[in-house]
Amino acid sequence: MEIEIRFTSEPIVIPPVAWPSREIGAVLEFQGLVRELEHGSAVPGLFYEAYEPMARKILHAHLAELGALHPIAAVLFIHRLGWVPVGEASLFIRVLSAHRGEALDYLAASVNRLKQDVPIWKRAAPPAG
Amino acid sequence: MEIEIRFTSEPIVIPPVAWPSREIGAVLEFQGLVRELEHGSAVPGLFYEAYEPMARKILHAHLAELGALHPIAAVLFIHRLGWVPVGEASLFIRVLSAHRGEALDYLAASVNRLKQDVPIWKRAAPPAG
Repeated sequence: MEIEIRFTSEPIVIPPVAWPSREIGAVLEFQGLVRELEHGSAVPGLFYEAYEPMARKILHAHLAELGALHPIAAVLFIHRLGWVPVGEASLFIRVLSAHRGEALDYLAASVNRLKQDVPIWKRAAPPAG
Repeated sequence: MEIEIRFTSEPIVIPPVAWPSREIGAVLEFQGLVRELEHGSAVPGLFYEAYEPMARKILHAHLAELGALHPIAAVLFIHRLGWVPVGEASLFIRVLSAHRGEALDYLAASVNRLKQDVPIWKRAAPPAG
């Protein structure tokens, strides 16, 4: 199973799919976008920060562990950091697998894990100064 | 809720995302690819046929019904017909919603429905002659 994790301070550019095998039957891609309403009030965007070495390490452990539960061929995880305006993606996840069931289960579980203990934070305003 | 259904005899070209609102938080895209092994034997591709007016009508009914169970903003459904070589997509589904949970549930349910009673058939060889 291939695991690739990227952090970027630029808008997320979705890379072309590289097929690890002719036995891939499902390509599932998720983009998480910043919405205008955050806890009921309108925001122009969100600011994301990460403690990157630790975030990468914890994420990798989660993504590998989930692969034992939901066998997939590859996962690409991209998180944007810094200011992300409404309507743009802060998160992109691509899962490749033989069958769609594993890809759907893996994707759902990976986003849940991301919200748990990965040191990535968001706030409504960019840092002052 | 927007529902768009397309059939094409050409390779599927994924159209750019059109945002219906600033309250879209999740974009979920699924591609179903033809795999080399079909029921245990290697195939060069699969041939898809549909009774298109009926397929469109039944699909639309399913997609609308699922929207009542899993509220989403929009779904784009593209099915390729004719010969599809291994590694190429026969199916593309894009779901836009406020939250990822609805998008994941909707997508999983819509592919299941597709396998039920929609008049789209596949076989391992193109028609003779």
